[in-house]
Amino acid sequence: MTRREFINQSSLSIGAVYAALNAWGFIYPAPAGAFDLQKTDKTGKVLILGAGLAGLAAAYELEKLGYQCTLLEARTRAGGRIWTIREGTQETEIGGEKQIAHFDKGLYLNAGAARIPNHHELSIHYCRELKIPLEVFINMNEAAYFYAEGQGTLANQPIKIRQLHADLRGYTAELAAKAIHAENLDAELSSEDAEKLIAYLKAEGDLVKNNQYQGSERRGYGFAFGATAAEAPAPAFALPDIIKSGLLHPAFSNVGEYTYHQQPTLLQPVGGMDRLVEAFKEKVGHLITYQAEVKEIYNLESGVKVLFQNNSGKTQEITADYCICTLPLPMLKKVKSNLSGDIQRAADFVPYMKTGKIGLQFKRRFWEEDDGIFGGISKTNMDITQIFYPSYGFTNSKGILKGYYNFHERAVRFADLSLADREKQALAEGGKIHPQYATEFENSFSLAWHKIPFSEGGWADYKANDRKLYFPTLLKADGAVYFAGEHTTYLNAWMAGAFESARRVVKQIHERVQAD
Amino acid sequence: MTRREFINQSSLSIGAVYAALNAWGFIYPAPAGAFDLQKTDKTGKVLILGAGLAGLAAAYELEKLGYQCTLLEARTRAGGRIWTIREGTQETEIGGEKQIAHFDKGLYLNAGAARIPNHHELSIHYCRELKIPLEVFINMNEAAYFYAEGQGTLANQPIKIRQLHADLRGYTAELAAKAIHAENLDAELSSEDAEKLIAYLKAEGDLVKNNQYQGSERRGYGFAFGATAAEAPAPAFALPDIIKSGLLHPAFSNVGEYTYHQQPTLLQPVGGMDRLVEAFKEKVGHLITYQAEVKEIYNLESGVKVLFQNNSGKTQEITADYCICTLPLPMLKKVKSNLSGDIQRAADFVPYMKTGKIGLQFKRRFWEEDDGIFGGISKTNMDITQIFYPSYGFTNSKGILKGYYNFHERAVRFADLSLADREKQALAEGGKIHPQYATEFENSFSLAWHKIPFSEGGWADYKANDRKLYFPTLLKADGAVYFAGEHTTYLNAWMAGAFESARRVVKQIHERVQAD
Repeated sequence: MTRREFINQSSLSIGAVYAALNAWGFIYPAPAGAFDLQKTDKTGKVLILGAGLAGLAAAYELEKLGYQCTLLEARTRAGGRIWTIREGTQETEIGGEKQIAHFDKGLYLNAGAARIPNHHELSIHYCRELKIPLEVFINMNEAAYFYAEGQGTLANQPIKIRQLHADLRGYTAELAAKAIHAENLDAELSSEDAEKLIAYLKAEGDLVKNNQYQGSERRGYGFAFGATAAEAPAPAFALPDIIKSGLLHPAFSNVGEYTYHQQPTLLQPVGGMDRLVEAFKEKVGHLITYQAEVKEIYNLESGVKVLFQNNSGKTQEITADYCICTLPLPMLKKVKSNLSGDIQRAADFVPYMKTGKIGLQFKRRFWEEDDGIFGGISKTNMDITQIFYPSYGFTNSKGILKGYYNFHERAVRFADLSLADREKQALAEGGKIHPQYATEFENSFSLAWHKIPFSEGGWADYKANDRKLYFPTLLKADGAVYFAGEHTTYLNAWMAGAFESARRVVKQIHERVQAD
Repeated sequence: MTRREFINQSSLSIGAVYAALNAWGFIYPAPAGAFDLQKTDKTGKVLILGAGLAGLAAAYELEKLGYQCTLLEARTRAGGRIWTIREGTQETEIGGEKQIAHFDKGLYLNAGAARIPNHHELSIHYCRELKIPLEVFINMNEAAYFYAEGQGTLANQPIKIRQLHADLRGYTAELAAKAIHAENLDAELSSEDAEKLIAYLKAEGDLVKNNQYQGSERRGYGFAFGATAAEAPAPAFALPDIIKSGLLHPAFSNVGEYTYHQQPTLLQPVGGMDRLVEAFKEKVGHLITYQAEVKEIYNLESGVKVLFQNNSGKTQEITADYCICTLPLPMLKKVKSNLSGDIQRAADFVPYMKTGKIGLQFKRRFWEEDDGIFGGISKTNMDITQIFYPSYGFTNSKGILKGYYNFHERAVRFADLSLADREKQALAEGGKIHPQYATEFENSFSLAWHKIPFSEGGWADYKANDRKLYFPTLLKADGAVYFAGEHTTYLNAWMAGAFESARRVVKQIHERVQAD
């Protein structure tokens, strides 16, 4: 039983458990998230395929235990989908044009992973262990906008999120209060409890007499709150107008920010997500062979053999006691191997997310100066789906917006445009929310993950049946080959998945080596 | 009509208005919040009473216009209620013991103003103009706790806010959906609109079939989300248990974080709120006379005369063309003057908030390491009222919590304790939420604003009648004396109030001087 399981399964109060654990010395000095494998003389040679986060973390932990690691990385850079676009970043998508980023120094776009949830212990742990400062990633900002393109009196104009939120909370609370008064409850509430619930709903929705919603100061004011005059807040939107204008569409729902993985507080490394990659490279960067494209993987009678194409286009062979394969499944699919049919089917059939982003550099932070938007996300039913405002560099002059971050068919439509047309459409759609786009835009960098070489997808997008059919096999060794990466976890798309999987395979290998 | 009024009152679309303003050159190059008074040869001597934010900003703007300013400050420091407690900070409350802060270098407590709302344009403007970097102030964190002391199965234990929020949104949405199905609506909704509203409520509350709430992944898991196993979230709390445990009490309502002035995104200066004071001091610090206690204020036939007690206890006289009095009303009340009866009544009768804070330094950030709490607020119905987690220095070793921030009678009860007993009670109550208090505590610094010399209150706490009777007179000149400070605005307790009022009096004086 782990310390954590003990804490959670105990019927004792938290305070008592904590006091006991503390007294027993169980809590100190181990920092949260430290890996507790014991180093011994029994080690081995481990070949790691892919120098993304899973590969880097596995190498880092194995080296601590005395193993000899080699990392093969197809790209000229490490980090995989931990990728921060900066001045000079180059990329050519499959079938695409060569692109070079012209962002100003100090400005960047996290093209892949961008957020760290507060309960992703390992992501935070490695930032702590590698001394990477963290700052807040703002996922929800009431000052940002909703923009519903379509019909209705509230459509086709930016609406402050605070206005919709206040109104919808108000109307919802009013309806809920009605249901209580109708004594139409499945749950039996005493009249005293019902009164407490109504008092809560009045506060939750800012209801007035008769438990009606009639607007709220929470909606804000037509202009900045004045100093010397009492101002009336803008009147509430009528509920039918909200509905007919499309503002109840899932595009505008709060689900994203309510979900366990996107609730506040979220964090990000100061200076870009690639700070994490650079920190791992300081530890294990010397073990990486770049431009090494894995072509074939074979379990031998003992150990593994991997063939890869090196940076001069020649095929090279390498052997090791064990192999950790972190290749995304669309890449594994292309590799020749004697791996099991189960593994090969997982590589063939687990779907990957189609997703894209664009970074738009502007010469002025009009979203901060004119709109009071510091970080957060505006949402729309247009193809751009959302606009992210930077959570760093507040009040600086220039800044980079994430002009779209979209998925599925919207991502495909953008991906299929030329770079110039992606930029043009991002500016056209985003310009409906921020007319300042027209005069402030400087340059862009866009990407479609399903067209990025050596990734060919955003993340493993398991459906329930895939999870049943293909997932379990990825957790076990296939001969001497182990699989790691977010696709071998339930934490898909998250760095924490890469880290958790790296620790799983390190533990599996270490236990096997000790048992030998 | 101001630019902003034009934008807001126009019936044109925002885009069209913006394009027009832009074409007319109305928008550039003036940065948001710049003060647009014209400098001329007509100026004068202005005596400013109080070197808090209102006084500093007024001096800064007047000096730009060529006026000759003198600031009298009773304390040995500038900033007033913009006060950051650091290593070595000293204070002795009225009737209290001398206190010296022993916080570690780099750690601090914002004892007064701590948050900047995203729409407080002037607060943000001055940070921009004075080149003070801003970072996020986290006001709401789903990972923090509610702790209801009292009866009920959920009382007397820390409950993750995310659990309560998910459950209450779920039950509220379920009730609201019931009301719709009961066709018991005042607002007439078409059946198509009603279905859209129900779809929204299902998403809002994470409802399952029959629009029932049965728990949600939003509540999180008993332990960190695992990598390789699908886990069931902890089951929902029963609504009657929530109610009977006191968790619908106003202490736990979302009103604070919903309100216009406390919605995300909030900001804070990097390094402490006193960075703002230091920046103003670089501009006008040489104009301040410290330890100058204002005792008498007289309008003369022309100009003003002020008597103050200087740092050697002697009474000194100073005259000027105009005076800006930023003394908090409890201080003005003690001043002898020939000011109007209306002003004197305002000073006598406008109530001020009783409020206190304590900073608790801990040798380990257990709230981050053990609880995954990065910034934000835990709330309780105990006297401590709330615990604030620092929004800076994430993953550092040590940290300072705001162990209480309370108001009214709770603040009075804490204020009336000795420093040692305040600390003891803060640790005892907070320790129920964080048992780690017992082993990690290092030192504290506490304050009660109503006992702090030269403030004697948190902020002007106007009731409706006070606003009618006493407020209007504070906006007008009394002879050559003008009044500024948060108490002369509707932005009470906010730095933006101090700034708005400073600009109001600078404008009033400048216009009068130009008209002379």
